[in-house]
Amino acid sequence: MRKSALVGALLATTFVTSPVLANDDVLKQTANPNQWVLQTGDYFNQRYSKLDQINKDNVKNLKVAWTFSTGVLRGHEGSPLVIGDTMYVHTPFPNIVYALDLNNDGRIIWKYEPKQDPSVIPVMCCDTVNRGLAYADGKIFLHQADTTVVALDAKNGKEIWKAVNGDPKKGETNTATVLPVKDKVIVGISGGEFGVQCHVTAYDMNTGKKVWRGYSVGPDDQILVDPEKTMSLGKPVGKDSSIKTWQGDQWKIGGGCTWGWYSYDPELNLMYYGSGNPSTWNPAQRPGDNKWSMTIWARDVDTGVAKWVYQMTPFDEWDYDGINEVILANIKVKGKDRKVAVHFDRNGLGYTLDRVTGELLVAEKFDPVVNWTTGVEMDPSKPNYGRPYVVDKYSTAKNGPDVNTKGVCPAALGTKDQRPAAFSPKTGVFYVPTNHVCMDYEPFKVSYTAGQPYVGATLSMYPAPNSHGGMGNFIAWDAGEGKILWSKPEPFSVWSGALATAGDIVFYGTLEGYLKAVDPKDGKELFKFKTPSGIIGNVMTYTHKGKQYVAILSGIGGWAGIGLAAGLTNPNDGLGAVGGYASLKNYTALGGVLTVFSLP
Amino acid sequence: MRKSALVGALLATTFVTSPVLANDDVLKQTANPNQWVLQTGDYFNQRYSKLDQINKDNVKNLKVAWTFSTGVLRGHEGSPLVIGDTMYVHTPFPNIVYALDLNNDGRIIWKYEPKQDPSVIPVMCCDTVNRGLAYADGKIFLHQADTTVVALDAKNGKEIWKAVNGDPKKGETNTATVLPVKDKVIVGISGGEFGVQCHVTAYDMNTGKKVWRGYSVGPDDQILVDPEKTMSLGKPVGKDSSIKTWQGDQWKIGGGCTWGWYSYDPELNLMYYGSGNPSTWNPAQRPGDNKWSMTIWARDVDTGVAKWVYQMTPFDEWDYDGINEVILANIKVKGKDRKVAVHFDRNGLGYTLDRVTGELLVAEKFDPVVNWTTGVEMDPSKPNYGRPYVVDKYSTAKNGPDVNTKGVCPAALGTKDQRPAAFSPKTGVFYVPTNHVCMDYEPFKVSYTAGQPYVGATLSMYPAPNSHGGMGNFIAWDAGEGKILWSKPEPFSVWSGALATAGDIVFYGTLEGYLKAVDPKDGKELFKFKTPSGIIGNVMTYTHKGKQYVAILSGIGGWAGIGLAAGLTNPNDGLGAVGGYASLKNYTALGGVLTVFSLP
Repeated sequence: MRKSALVGALLATTFVTSPVLANDDVLKQTANPNQWVLQTGDYFNQRYSKLDQINKDNVKNLKVAWTFSTGVLRGHEGSPLVIGDTMYVHTPFPNIVYALDLNNDGRIIWKYEPKQDPSVIPVMCCDTVNRGLAYADGKIFLHQADTTVVALDAKNGKEIWKAVNGDPKKGETNTATVLPVKDKVIVGISGGEFGVQCHVTAYDMNTGKKVWRGYSVGPDDQILVDPEKTMSLGKPVGKDSSIKTWQGDQWKIGGGCTWGWYSYDPELNLMYYGSGNPSTWNPAQRPGDNKWSMTIWARDVDTGVAKWVYQMTPFDEWDYDGINEVILANIKVKGKDRKVAVHFDRNGLGYTLDRVTGELLVAEKFDPVVNWTTGVEMDPSKPNYGRPYVVDKYSTAKNGPDVNTKGVCPAALGTKDQRPAAFSPKTGVFYVPTNHVCMDYEPFKVSYTAGQPYVGATLSMYPAPNSHGGMGNFIAWDAGEGKILWSKPEPFSVWSGALATAGDIVFYGTLEGYLKAVDPKDGKELFKFKTPSGIIGNVMTYTHKGKQYVAILSGIGGWAGIGLAAGLTNPNDGLGAVGGYASLKNYTALGGVLTVFSLP
Repeated sequence: MRKSALVGALLATTFVTSPVLANDDVLKQTANPNQWVLQTGDYFNQRYSKLDQINKDNVKNLKVAWTFSTGVLRGHEGSPLVIGDTMYVHTPFPNIVYALDLNNDGRIIWKYEPKQDPSVIPVMCCDTVNRGLAYADGKIFLHQADTTVVALDAKNGKEIWKAVNGDPKKGETNTATVLPVKDKVIVGISGGEFGVQCHVTAYDMNTGKKVWRGYSVGPDDQILVDPEKTMSLGKPVGKDSSIKTWQGDQWKIGGGCTWGWYSYDPELNLMYYGSGNPSTWNPAQRPGDNKWSMTIWARDVDTGVAKWVYQMTPFDEWDYDGINEVILANIKVKGKDRKVAVHFDRNGLGYTLDRVTGELLVAEKFDPVVNWTTGVEMDPSKPNYGRPYVVDKYSTAKNGPDVNTKGVCPAALGTKDQRPAAFSPKTGVFYVPTNHVCMDYEPFKVSYTAGQPYVGATLSMYPAPNSHGGMGNFIAWDAGEGKILWSKPEPFSVWSGALATAGDIVFYGTLEGYLKAVDPKDGKELFKFKTPSGIIGNVMTYTHKGKQYVAILSGIGGWAGIGLAAGLTNPNDGLGAVGGYASLKNYTALGGVLTVFSLP
């Protein structure tokens, strides 16, 4: 009976027609809407819940059920997990993990506090955030700031294994969650602002032994592409597809980091993610397309070998780091049923690709203010097929080093950064937390020293001009047509992950600290509540003893909140974010609190 | 019309019959139950509110209205203030002050962050707490950890004046609020565990100039007593009443600190407070009564001269620091109307005195477990009149240094520490947060070095034996008869200040983090809510736009929570508190959050 419910659930969201061979436990656990087992809700990264007790009509009555201070300040990204009667809560550095007893008002069952050298803190580019835990096979997986991957016994918090994925002394750190899939735990790495050659790595779920590692940039055997079989826009990538797009050995310090979210299609056995910006931010130091930075990857989870790649921003000139989540869905694209991968990139374009083949279906601006490009060439017969046309005026490479290119939209933190969008299979619509921020960008020559910042640009960010005056929008997006359906302005960037539910509501948080619920039809605000601190966490939901709860971590920080989180006051500090978000201090102070809501 | 309302209010609570000559502003502001102007609610320290919108019947519907993270962890004592549409919130070290706009979901109007040398932190005996702000004449008064007293413009947070009350390098620090009265601001000082000769000091409210200073121990001209006119138990204290009860110059490092709460009777023009323990904790080093440590003082606020004194624990042998609040009330004592001062001492005795004369009316145990004394001699004809009879077995002085006196009840942190009780004029009953904790106490010889700890005893604290197994009770006390009316057991000490209201409810918080409302008749629990962290703050209430709110700071710490707050794990650390409260870590983590409640 359980099995049929599971299959039914899978059918509903993934059109699986063959026997399930992937990690049965994760599939089983994520198919149960009473739980929240992965940060992304499910393998498809849809952040959709079938729970409907809390709905469009009664959400206005939502009240705080209980609260929990994590004991840590600074930016709280990610969300708690719920498995059975236990909630698992993580914190920013030092990455404490709490197991809380839902039967007992959140009493602490166990606490795990890793010992990490605090020297990792200044090596983390944009606050000491962590995007949370994952659960599989009775284990809680934590990927620490210092890149240690830990498997904990979910029952008692005891370490089962540990693996060291990188070296903070070389600028390698972590802020991301992990993808537990089949018998592996797959993890990424940060360090694009320190010249790290980034990669994804699969560890054996039971032992922590390294199984495979695929770099984003480098020789074919490092990036795990098959020159003949790995496809890009319908053609094999060919030999040395990455290194021939770099000058000399620059690829060795070439970035392409992997600190975003990973989705997975059990039927195709492919994982999807975006690689980040090439290093340095000064384009003059790295002529070429800098492949495969800024790329959506589809890799076989067993071997790591890429099935296809698509580079969104060849030769990045603006730090349009491509790590945002890739949401898998089955929707109509221009009238035709498609298995798609949808990605809202920092560069301001919303992409829809065929996730089987990597075919580019849609690439449209999801904020009309985007001005660095006139759009992407969609005609396969054109030489520029799949590439964005860059507007000279906003080309920091054309303007050259030590020239301040003004008024580029979006800013480096993108029309959207890492906080994940939600997709509702019920409406077929994507709900996307966005930035509405532009920038001035001045590249300069920078030398590489291992473990030292390797940025090479001075930035200043500010609200997009000639619009509503705010710095963010929460939007509804038709990924089949590449169109904004509605847009709800917010005074600050929406830096929180969204959640859509079968109760006909969409939730998100704001940097001032509000949890909001809106109508998926038109974005009308149905509920708001001021949590203790600014929200950069992701909304999740679960049931306990038959009652639905909604939970959110508040704790201002992240790139947008780095000024408050790290006490920075110079407007150009925080890689340019501080000035734009300086007035956040009028709304909120540091915090680290879980707030759990329910109906009365 | 305002004036008549004011006079009516005063008549109701203080029987004032003569024209009000004291600080009109504070009297006016505290008479308005919509506000919360002093930490203690009013000059009488009653912590009673006439608001009754939230009442016994509907309190079960209370829900969280909004929340605010202070951006600081560790112990949050005291409460916010509300004046008009503005809420003022303080934090532990570094003692940030926020002015929050109640018209705008608590948006930050201004923030004041003093610059203090963090070297003050290890000089604070029992966490970096601060018991909050006071308001008078358009000014917010803050007394910082480093003993700087600051007057801020309530409108914009600008400094009006600053005064330095002590020197942390000599062990002088502050955790207390201040008493704004007439044209003065009266402040105390901490440092009993550092051999400070402690005092109360009055500063000019408009300029910050020192007006008078009265020490607790020392020569008559320092302690501001009139040998002929200052009374003790009906007799003048006589010449050198303090120094003749000390051996040699020990009084110069004699403690008697003043970090508690100050009450004030406008009609009598007297302020009331308790002085703390004599230094050191090793009684062998300071034979004598150690006057006037451990004493309730009634001082004229204009001159500082004492009208009367009453020493509760002559020659302290247990650190029964006498600083707890002195609550003024007009009640029947053994059938007769009396103007009384009521004090629940650390030593486990609840005292009722005539606040005009200092006559001792009642002295009874407010926890039956108290065993160090058989009681106080109440017969004025006896030589021991007014003194407690000490049980030899529990006399750490008789047992001598380097002997571990076991099973003393209460523990050093008393049957009650600083968190204030509430008095309801409606019921005539006191509601008292208590400890139910005993100790082993081993004094040892200690040498004095300025600025170094001068404790001289090793302690271990644990739940009182042979009782409900918990470490606290919330009790109702008849101060006229000296009787417990009811007692509600709690798993941990109740380390939160109580609030009684005209809505027939009494509120308090718990160390696990619950805000609770109980029935004043029988202590029956009417409401509870789990706030983000353990509560050591004091409950307050106010109205905004006609709606009643209840607010509480959570943030585990203080003496009971010092283990969590300072990361101590050795059971005997934290002056003996850590072991007893070690299991708090199973309930809560550090925090610093204001939670504001209202009816739906």
